[in-house]
Amino acid sequence: MRQLEQRILEDGRVLPGEVLKVDGFLNHQVDPDLMFAIGSEFAYLFRGEGITKILTVESSGIAPAVMTGLQLHVPVVFARKHKSVTLIDDLFTAEVYSYTKKTSNQISIAKKFLSADDKVLIIDDFLANGQAVQGLFEICDQAKAEIAGAGMVIEKVFQTGHQMIKDRGVRLESLAQITSFEGNQVHFASETTD
Amino acid sequence: MRQLEQRILEDGRVLPGEVLKVDGFLNHQVDPDLMFAIGSEFAYLFRGEGITKILTVESSGIAPAVMTGLQLHVPVVFARKHKSVTLIDDLFTAEVYSYTKKTSNQISIAKKFLSADDKVLIIDDFLANGQAVQGLFEICDQAKAEIAGAGMVIEKVFQTGHQMIKDRGVRLESLAQITSFEGNQVHFASETTD
Repeated sequence: MRQLEQRILEDGRVLPGEVLKVDGFLNHQVDPDLMFAIGSEFAYLFRGEGITKILTVESSGIAPAVMTGLQLHVPVVFARKHKSVTLIDDLFTAEVYSYTKKTSNQISIAKKFLSADDKVLIIDDFLANGQAVQGLFEICDQAKAEIAGAGMVIEKVFQTGHQMIKDRGVRLESLAQITSFEGNQVHFASETTD
Repeated sequence: MRQLEQRILEDGRVLPGEVLKVDGFLNHQVDPDLMFAIGSEFAYLFRGEGITKILTVESSGIAPAVMTGLQLHVPVVFARKHKSVTLIDDLFTAEVYSYTKKTSNQISIAKKFLSADDKVLIIDDFLANGQAVQGLFEICDQAKAEIAGAGMVIEKVFQTGHQMIKDRGVRLESLAQITSFEGNQVHFASETTD
């Protein structure tokens, strides 16, 4: 998605450890018009899949997920993060390790909001090691919900999340695919395909 | 806002301690079309105020805030919640006590996203004791930003947040004003004014 790549080049900052900081438009300050364009793109890409529900994880996934839900006219459920939850009967839960924060969290979704009748689209802001997506897969499995696809705003294709989703046989659409960093420079997969 | 009140009557549940649970459309599962309608209403109400930025607090404020930002075409910044942050130079921070969770959190906003040039609209999902709004007021004061208004999706007018905002002289617009609970019944201010 050209508009998104352009914005990453203008406002993103590359930090040590191959971290891309996009807090100016995606995960602290949010550009609602760009989020709407992102939602349009996901809604277009997954329009034929019979999606009944969008899942994401708080907090940075919410804006792109809700904009996609607006254009597919389906509800969005955002998983809550907790340090740990004692077993609660009415929740689906999964463990998610964050490589950037070096902490483990549980994520949870109330059982009443996900069922075997659902065809789920997973939306998130970033795909790197895919821990959050893996956690949402586990929650979908617990609910016996069908996973129709995963839509990632920004993907670092050289990390393990990409392959994890492919291995599971889930359709993956990422709107900006980063292939490498060179100093402060960001390279996209589209550079070689355009 | 009639559509919102209707939805509260259909899907909300009153829990002990005058807690209204609206996790079916606002703060766990989210109805994007309703959020868009809420954003339209806030954008209409505050259209003449010269708003330059919307502030909210993660996570439940994000969906209504981003939908308002979409229709006012201004950026949204969501404050991050932390257990506590060691003093960090580049953050505005405030302490927020949650009566429902009985825990204290710090909220923070990066200094680069808020300045004395901003006219701020604060959006949040719930106004009860107003602790989150108070925290955002403190952050605006630190930034010397002007507070143009506060837009609350649901307000419990009988709790202290309403008066706190009025005392500060800030314009307050709440889309559903709850005046009392009677068992499982919810009463709105609009019942007496319509």
